Amino acid sequence: MKEYLENINKAFESKARLGIMSVLLVDDRVDFNTLKETLQLTDGNLASHLRALEEAKYLQVEKQFVGRKPNTTYQATEAGREAFKSHLDALEQLILNNRQSD
Amino acid sequence: MKEYLENINKAFESKARLGIMSVLLVDDRVDFNTLKETLQLTDGNLASHLRALEEAKYLQVEKQFVGRKPNTTYQATEAGREAFKSHLDALEQLILNNRQSD
Repeated sequence: MKEYLENINKAFESKARLGIMSVLLVDDRVDFNTLKETLQLTDGNLASHLRALEEAKYLQVEKQFVGRKPNTTYQATEAGREAFKSHLDALEQLILNNRQSD
Repeated sequence: MKEYLENINKAFESKARLGIMSVLLVDDRVDFNTLKETLQLTDGNLASHLRALEEAKYLQVEKQFVGRKPNTTYQATEAGREAFKSHLDALEQLILNNRQSD
């Protein structure tokens, strides 16, 4: 297989997960509603992608109360940052490879 | 939603489809076995991704005989080339956006 394809990480394939990781790399710690609004996902869809990324240990979840209201925030782990950057590098190689063929 | 995410095309999300379109942009017309070996996919998996791309009118299929053996080749359509390039542009924007946050 072409080298750059080997480094494409299935955990980040979908638009939703690319979006989640992008937001978390820029904004450090983000709550559920901010992610939902930024990415325009349904609750169920966002929750399922967050769960998958949490299971892969690419993000960590913190639950706390703001006053009486529960507030859940998400943060990329160091492993998540590294893995996502490797994924973006692989996509960059794929783009460069395709540009050369123009 | 962030602009660059809007232009990410779900038809090309998976590694397999990124690979198929990359090969077809470089090599013009490719047969099933070449795709299979280049991308290291199973017959069933490759066939299902090719079918989806054909249904989206991003590639066209040609069946012919080489001697007595049937030979099926795949070629990106003009619409497929344009759509894939737009997808790569969107990925590039996503990468640039993330690099700026380093």
